Amino acid sequence: MEYQAVFQETGAEALLITDPFNMRYLSGFRGGEGMLFLTEDRQVLITDSRYTEAAGKETAFQVMEENREHRRTEILRELLRETKAEAAGYEDQSMRCSEFAALQRALPEVKQWIPLAGRVDRLRRIKTPEEIGYMRRAEEIGDEAFEALLPLLKPGMTELEAAAELEYQMKKRGAEGFSFDTIMASGIHSSMPHAIPSGKKLEAGDFITMDFGCTYQGYCSDMTRTVVMGKADEKQKEMYGIVLRAQRAALELIRAGLPGSRVDREAREIIEKAGYGDCFGHGLGHSVGLYIHEEPRLSPSDDTILEPGMIETVEPGIYVPGFGGVRIEDMVAVTEDGCENLTRSPKELLEL
Amino acid sequence: MEYQAVFQETGAEALLITDPFNMRYLSGFRGGEGMLFLTEDRQVLITDSRYTEAAGKETAFQVMEENREHRRTEILRELLRETKAEAAGYEDQSMRCSEFAALQRALPEVKQWIPLAGRVDRLRRIKTPEEIGYMRRAEEIGDEAFEALLPLLKPGMTELEAAAELEYQMKKRGAEGFSFDTIMASGIHSSMPHAIPSGKKLEAGDFITMDFGCTYQGYCSDMTRTVVMGKADEKQKEMYGIVLRAQRAALELIRAGLPGSRVDREAREIIEKAGYGDCFGHGLGHSVGLYIHEEPRLSPSDDTILEPGMIETVEPGIYVPGFGGVRIEDMVAVTEDGCENLTRSPKELLEL
Repeated sequence: MEYQAVFQETGAEALLITDPFNMRYLSGFRGGEGMLFLTEDRQVLITDSRYTEAAGKETAFQVMEENREHRRTEILRELLRETKAEAAGYEDQSMRCSEFAALQRALPEVKQWIPLAGRVDRLRRIKTPEEIGYMRRAEEIGDEAFEALLPLLKPGMTELEAAAELEYQMKKRGAEGFSFDTIMASGIHSSMPHAIPSGKKLEAGDFITMDFGCTYQGYCSDMTRTVVMGKADEKQKEMYGIVLRAQRAALELIRAGLPGSRVDREAREIIEKAGYGDCFGHGLGHSVGLYIHEEPRLSPSDDTILEPGMIETVEPGIYVPGFGGVRIEDMVAVTEDGCENLTRSPKELLEL
Repeated sequence: MEYQAVFQETGAEALLITDPFNMRYLSGFRGGEGMLFLTEDRQVLITDSRYTEAAGKETAFQVMEENREHRRTEILRELLRETKAEAAGYEDQSMRCSEFAALQRALPEVKQWIPLAGRVDRLRRIKTPEEIGYMRRAEEIGDEAFEALLPLLKPGMTELEAAAELEYQMKKRGAEGFSFDTIMASGIHSSMPHAIPSGKKLEAGDFITMDFGCTYQGYCSDMTRTVVMGKADEKQKEMYGIVLRAQRAALELIRAGLPGSRVDREAREIIEKAGYGDCFGHGLGHSVGLYIHEEPRLSPSDDTILEPGMIETVEPGIYVPGFGGVRIEDMVAVTEDGCENLTRSPKELLEL
C-alpha cells in the first residue's frame, strides 16, 4: 500500500486516520464516520452499527464495531497493546482540538504523538486513470445538466428555483450528491463570488453566474458559467471578454513542471492590465478530488510544481459590487505537455 | 448579547469564534468562512473578499477583510493590541489541531488560551419562537415533498432517482439546501441505518426507508418514513408495528424536566421486549437547529434535562441485516407539558 512510506517518513508505528476522505481513499469505506488504525502489517476500520454492514462490503480491512459496550478508545488500547505501537501519527489538519485532547487522555500507551500534517492527503494529489475517469464523468454530468438547464431559464424564475432545476438535472443523470452548495447568482448578486441562491427573480439584463458540481463514485466535479438574461450591454461584454481571455491564457499555459503560482499570474496579469486587478480577489484555481478543495492551488502563494495527474480548476473572475460579476471555470487534468480539459460546455457569451 | 456570560464563565477577555454555525448564530453572517473576534465591547467579523459584500448586509458587526496584504493573524494582532485582551477563548470542539497550533505561534500577545468546549453551542439549545417557526416551515416542506413523492415511486425506479425526485420536490417548495445527504434505502439496503442511495431498483416487497431534511433560513428539518412497495408481509408488519409503538410511546412521554436518557429508555424497552433489542444500535434522537446533529441527545448516555424550546428528533428503528429495516422519525419542539410535533406526514404503514 502507498501509505507504507508514511511510517518511514514520520517515524510513526501506527497511523490513526480520521479524515473521511483519507479513510475512503485508503480503505474504500464510504461512511465517513470512524477511524482507521494502520500499522505496517495491520489494517483495521473502526466504525459503529450504522455503517458496519456496508463497511464489510466496501473495504478489505478488518472491520471492528464500536458501541456502548466496546468503545473506540478501548478498541484502540487493545490494538496498541497487540501491535506494541508507541508512536502514533494523527491527522492534525482534520482532527479537532477537543478530540485530540480526549485521545491523549485515553491512550497513555502512546508515548509519542506525531502530527501527520498533509502527508496522507498528499497521497491523493496524483489521480490514477480510474480516478480521472470518474471525474471526467462527473464533469460530463455537469455539462449535460447545464445544457438541459439553459432553455428552462426564464425571467421571473427565482435563483432558488433555477438552482433546484440544475441540481435535479444532475441527479437525474446519476449525480450521487453535490460537490458544494450550488451557486446561482443573478444581477448584482453575481458580484459576490460565493453568493447563496435567494428568492430574487432572474431579470432581463442580469448576469447569471452558475458555479456547480456533483459527485460520481465519490469524486467531485466543478465548473462555472456566466450567461446574460437577454442582451448583454457593453460593460458586460467587456468584463466577460477579459475573463475569457484570462482563462484561455491560463489553459494555454498550464502543464506539468510549472508552479501553480505561475499559472495564476498568467491570468491575473491580463485582468490587472485591463484595469480590473482590484476585482479579482481569489486564487485562480484549486485541486479537486474526493474533496472539492484540495492542494495544491493555483494561487499567488502556492509554488508547488504541477505534476501529471493533478486535477485543477481554472477560474478567473471579475466582481464589481453593485453591478455584477463574471466567472468562467473549467476543470482540467494536468499532463506532461499541457492539460486535458474535462469541461465541454461552451464559453462564448450566451445571451438567453 | 447572550454571549456576554461566556466572558465571566470562562475568564476569557476575547472570544475567537470559528464554528460556522456559531458565527451565524451570533452575527447573522451566513458565509461560514472567517472568524469572529468578540470582546465585551467589540464585535468584529473577519472574512475574505468572497464574502465581504454579503457580510455587510447580513451582520451588524464590524466587517474586516482579510487578504494577502492584510492577513487574518495580522488583523487579530491589531485587535488584541487595541483591546488589550490577553486571555483568548477558542472553539476547541470545532477548531482543528493544526489551525490552533498556527494561531498559538502567530499570536504571542495571547498569554492564556481557554478552550470554550460547547459553551457557545449551548447558547443555541433553546430555540426562540422565531427559530421554531423556521424549523416548522422546513419540516412542512419535507412533509409536502414526501406527499408529492409517494405517487411517483414505482418499481423499477432506482434509489438515486427517487432521492433526486424527493430533493427536487423540497427545492421547488423553497428548501435552501439539504440538512444531510438524503437516505433512500430499499429492500435489504434498508437494514443499513445510513445507507447511501444506489443504482438499485425499487422492487415489489421492498421496505423503502427515506430519511431526509432541508434547510430554511438556515435551520434544518429532519424526518424519516418507511413504506412498503406493494404488499407488506407478516414480518414487515410486525417490525413496523413495534417501531411505531416505540415511537408513539416516546412522543407521549417526552416533556421538559425529563432527562433525554429516560425518553430513549421508553422506546428502547418496547423494542427489547419485542425481541429486537440487538437490532436498534443507535440513540433515539438528537437535537436539531442550524446544524443537523446538536446536543443534547435522546440516548442512553445523555442525562441532560430537557427544556422548553429544545428541538428533538424521535427516531427508533429496527434493522435486520439481510432482510431490511424500519425507522420512523418525527421532529418535535419540547414544551412544559409535552411537545409540539412539527411533522405531519402519516405514520400508518403505507403499502404503495
